[in-house]
Amino acid sequence: MVVLRSYVSGSWQSPADEGVPLPDAVTGEEVARISSEGIDLGAALEYGRRTGGPALRELTFHQRAALLKALASHLREHRDELYELSARTGATLGDSKFDIDGGIGVLFGYSSKGRRELPNDTFLVEGAVEPLGKGGTFVGQHLCTPMRGVAVQINAFNFPVWGPLEKLAPAFLAGMPSLVKPASQTAYLSARMLELVVESGILPEGSVQFVCGDARDLLDHLTEQDLVAFTGSASTAQRLRTHPAVVGRSVRFNAEADSLNCSILGPDAAPGTQEFDLFVKQLVTEMTVKAGQKCTAIRRALVPGSLMDDVEEAVRERLAKVTVGNPANADVRMGALASLDQREEVRRSLKALLDAGRVAYGDPDHISPVDADAERGAFMSPILLRADDPDRPEPHEVEAFGPVSTLLPYTGAEQAVELAARGRGSLAGSVVTADIGFAREVVLGIAPWHGRLLVLNGEDAKESTGHGSPLPALVHGGPGRAGGGEEMGGVRGVLHHMQRTAVQAGPAMLTALTGRWVPGTDRTVTEEHPFRKHLEDLRVGDTAVGGPRTVTLEDVQHFAEFTGDTFYAHMDEESAKANPFFNGRVAHGYLIVSFAAGLFVSPDPGPVLANYGLENLRFLTPVYPGDELTVTLTAKQITPREGTGYGEVRWDTDVTNQDGASVAKYDVLTLVASRPE
Amino acid sequence: MVVLRSYVSGSWQSPADEGVPLPDAVTGEEVARISSEGIDLGAALEYGRRTGGPALRELTFHQRAALLKALASHLREHRDELYELSARTGATLGDSKFDIDGGIGVLFGYSSKGRRELPNDTFLVEGAVEPLGKGGTFVGQHLCTPMRGVAVQINAFNFPVWGPLEKLAPAFLAGMPSLVKPASQTAYLSARMLELVVESGILPEGSVQFVCGDARDLLDHLTEQDLVAFTGSASTAQRLRTHPAVVGRSVRFNAEADSLNCSILGPDAAPGTQEFDLFVKQLVTEMTVKAGQKCTAIRRALVPGSLMDDVEEAVRERLAKVTVGNPANADVRMGALASLDQREEVRRSLKALLDAGRVAYGDPDHISPVDADAERGAFMSPILLRADDPDRPEPHEVEAFGPVSTLLPYTGAEQAVELAARGRGSLAGSVVTADIGFAREVVLGIAPWHGRLLVLNGEDAKESTGHGSPLPALVHGGPGRAGGGEEMGGVRGVLHHMQRTAVQAGPAMLTALTGRWVPGTDRTVTEEHPFRKHLEDLRVGDTAVGGPRTVTLEDVQHFAEFTGDTFYAHMDEESAKANPFFNGRVAHGYLIVSFAAGLFVSPDPGPVLANYGLENLRFLTPVYPGDELTVTLTAKQITPREGTGYGEVRWDTDVTNQDGASVAKYDVLTLVASRPE
Repeated sequence: MVVLRSYVSGSWQSPADEGVPLPDAVTGEEVARISSEGIDLGAALEYGRRTGGPALRELTFHQRAALLKALASHLREHRDELYELSARTGATLGDSKFDIDGGIGVLFGYSSKGRRELPNDTFLVEGAVEPLGKGGTFVGQHLCTPMRGVAVQINAFNFPVWGPLEKLAPAFLAGMPSLVKPASQTAYLSARMLELVVESGILPEGSVQFVCGDARDLLDHLTEQDLVAFTGSASTAQRLRTHPAVVGRSVRFNAEADSLNCSILGPDAAPGTQEFDLFVKQLVTEMTVKAGQKCTAIRRALVPGSLMDDVEEAVRERLAKVTVGNPANADVRMGALASLDQREEVRRSLKALLDAGRVAYGDPDHISPVDADAERGAFMSPILLRADDPDRPEPHEVEAFGPVSTLLPYTGAEQAVELAARGRGSLAGSVVTADIGFAREVVLGIAPWHGRLLVLNGEDAKESTGHGSPLPALVHGGPGRAGGGEEMGGVRGVLHHMQRTAVQAGPAMLTALTGRWVPGTDRTVTEEHPFRKHLEDLRVGDTAVGGPRTVTLEDVQHFAEFTGDTFYAHMDEESAKANPFFNGRVAHGYLIVSFAAGLFVSPDPGPVLANYGLENLRFLTPVYPGDELTVTLTAKQITPREGTGYGEVRWDTDVTNQDGASVAKYDVLTLVASRPE
Repeated sequence: MVVLRSYVSGSWQSPADEGVPLPDAVTGEEVARISSEGIDLGAALEYGRRTGGPALRELTFHQRAALLKALASHLREHRDELYELSARTGATLGDSKFDIDGGIGVLFGYSSKGRRELPNDTFLVEGAVEPLGKGGTFVGQHLCTPMRGVAVQINAFNFPVWGPLEKLAPAFLAGMPSLVKPASQTAYLSARMLELVVESGILPEGSVQFVCGDARDLLDHLTEQDLVAFTGSASTAQRLRTHPAVVGRSVRFNAEADSLNCSILGPDAAPGTQEFDLFVKQLVTEMTVKAGQKCTAIRRALVPGSLMDDVEEAVRERLAKVTVGNPANADVRMGALASLDQREEVRRSLKALLDAGRVAYGDPDHISPVDADAERGAFMSPILLRADDPDRPEPHEVEAFGPVSTLLPYTGAEQAVELAARGRGSLAGSVVTADIGFAREVVLGIAPWHGRLLVLNGEDAKESTGHGSPLPALVHGGPGRAGGGEEMGGVRGVLHHMQRTAVQAGPAMLTALTGRWVPGTDRTVTEEHPFRKHLEDLRVGDTAVGGPRTVTLEDVQHFAEFTGDTFYAHMDEESAKANPFFNGRVAHGYLIVSFAAGLFVSPDPGPVLANYGLENLRFLTPVYPGDELTVTLTAKQITPREGTGYGEVRWDTDVTNQDGASVAKYDVLTLVASRPE
């Protein structure tokens, strides 16, 4: 008898009792037993706060990102073992890859986002510096710092690997430790994956803990700095959301609940079009992947009334080819539901749905699974329903969480929008059409009801990841029935684990707090040109001043001829004067930045390797022949790149004229070498 | 007898009963009566959804911003009338300006943010296009669309004008109608302000409604697309947050509750320093403005132990100069609390606080107000408490919502951080110090517990708006006890009223959906150069192609001499080769963009008025002598500027070499004239 262990408070812990059996979805045999009895959950939370939190907060975003990447590689090496366990949940190899490779993909995705979009620092400076006073001595800036508690992650049974990983990755990257609670039904797979995580030793101790079994008093121990990320049923979400500790301590609570997602076939997509085929294929995929146990699966297929018969026939035909049975058999296209209980629940929901329509394909009560026992395994036929009155409430309200979808007719874009909204909030929706006008009307109409929308047609079909696949770069979650939450979405998901604080201060103080030079702070003009300094020697505020240089009419004339930029404002006094912004011939903006570079550059070989770009360039005051340009270049932000031998330096650049007025402001981006070892 | 009217469902409605009296805080006389009896609140919500929502959603952000500005000007013209009513709430003229001018300032602030930071469109395209497939045929983009319900705004009594306006402004700008419920105690002032709003006719019908009196069954009628923004006590927040409709329909619920905010004096700030004086002055201000009835007021003053006596003495001295009485008297520095009930509550809390310390200034039970009756008006002395044991729980847990603060000693930055956190979440905090190290340790230590932090010292004192002032550009709200919410913060506050949806599509479809040209979409190369087109005639996707032009070694040499940019990578073959990124002498980045401009420009006078800037310039491939450059310029985003005769056009710019590789990519920003009328 295998009893699942938990990993809490720095040690492997077995429950105090024998636990309850977890049956194999295919054979009914006991896979493992589960219980959290006797495990001190309050202590686990406190351990996370005291151990994992401080360890994580010492690392920068880039360092955390590197650990996520290492973890992803480690799990990838152990995929086969996980696939094997996954089959016992009823999953085909395809289903397992969706779950396991998908989860590993989220780790890679967040690792990459972390390195590209977050600073190599322990906290995040968000948005622009806000001027709060006219004199420039009082400014504001938003900082995001990791919350000081634990992210309690309560997962659903249907994605035992992806579920925990998509919650863990952004929390970890934010600098917040996780306490993972897998769903019991499939916890043996989650637990093995999490054992691999812990045993790898890649992540700092205390940054990931997990509890197998009931959550018991877990939520009682929450504090204001903890958060809860929940995936599961709407009713459980409501119970947890109103828990006295959650409410009383304003604990951040994110819910992701399965919803009555729709897919809408465009009126243009008649039989014979690519879009018709894409719609049918996607519908069958969504019905059968994970035996339809996906919170993003299509429950309502909205079809132009005149195409209902064609769609029904095409879907039936395709469903007929779906072999149901033991996922170990290579011919099997759809495995078992997660448990016999689950199948009972689906059958109950189906009964309610049948008040609104008829079965167009499949037998809800009988199946002859390949290589398996129909009674011991949780097998079920895919069921296509058809409801010809789209105004019946059931298809919009009752979810059968299995291989079940309902065809519904609509008459025009407006009705399609109205019917989609009757789901009262969805995680995902799709519109299958090549008709741009239809797509625009429907997408903008149903967007407020959706967390994610896919427009599928010939243009994107080849690369589309499909209706049901959440992606780490995109938000996952939805309003209303879908729980009202939001996960992932790239850096957004990281920010969900941080506290945003508006900091008000003088510019010099803000520079000291953020490590970024804020305009208004004193500049350090040193004898040595800052381009002569290696990355480690450079300080924000280090400044080079170049100029003045007079811009002559000959310069402008020559630059125009040399580059070919003979725009009238540079060439013709009369026409230039007629322009609302100029009083006569002006210098080219590109001439100004080119001269500025000539004034600030330090020519000899040195630590500055390249100018790789420019940001936020604005031309603020016209430059007329005779004007004198001075450039002031100040190190603004220094970002070492781990393991490369160099880093990025962003320079605040201000080109002024003889009156001290800024004529151009921008950020110069350079790569600067580290000191040779 | 004046009974306050509500404005709902398009008409002025009086309650069905006589209502309850609202007494003048100074004289106890009845100012008005209030009740919502008989008003159909469900119908009001539905009216907002059916009338105000659609009207608002037809406007662009810029159009909504212009209306907010007009409204702000209108209210400003009626300030004097509002000041007069405000005095009856117990407010001095200074208090009234804080509330009324502050509220008008939020409208101006949001109007300005809307025009500068949001597009001239009806929805928001957020963040970058996310590549989702390697072939570039499948991409993602987040859209934010206005929620289709009503923003129910439940306000607190202490800011009868600022409170409703700081909630209304971001909702309106987002395109979401508001239903405002003022707090009863001071509703006569809110109601007059909202009457001015409605009577002005500036805002679309249905976009602002208000209900005076009890909320009754209001929340029962909420749907998934409505939201609630609440300011008030933590206990009411908890009750509303767990309302069955809020929980069952995942209604967005934002709470802002008063908190036990702290101000921390730095160890450097001994008597005689500017920071010592700033701390004392600010503490007295926060105790006495609005008679301390500010959710952001300082309740805990943390002082280095050795400075406790000095601070106590200085604060006492300053408090002694605060004249309490009838705000109509020009000598009066502090008015009345909002009601006698309010005073009773403060006295009750004070009793609890006295378990932890002693009164250092003031008499909680007696006062002789200037020009007023001590028994009929809700007057109270400012009360300074001193608790020498900072570990006592009361000062960190009990809030007296009036002119009351407690001095507490600390011994070092670490303890200051620990004590600040014992407030379990605050709206605002301040650190008064010129010590950069102390400020950094404290700010980063307490940031996770705060929505806003002020660092006050000689650098920013002159322009600082102070500890207690939320600003529209900065977030307002805080974790834990402060309610766990977030309001304002510039565009962030607008997004709180919108649904974020990840849209996945092919690039051409995404271009059609967003109105912005997405790379991968076909370009339209027309015979007419797109620079010859007026704003109205230009379409996203319109493209100019220029080149090829060969870059010669002479060009590089000449450019270096002309501009002075003789960086070795351009001048010296040997040294350039030693650079890790180059294989020999390379062309200047500035030469590339200058030549590109020469290739894409259309020289004659025409609709393009100016190139006002550049964004996101990246040099991607080195350009060597002999390389041939081609530039492709494509209209990416067109933003008309209401009432200016021109608009902004952003051009996607791609400079490629003879192999088709991109050598530089950037956005060129131009101003383009509208068609002459």
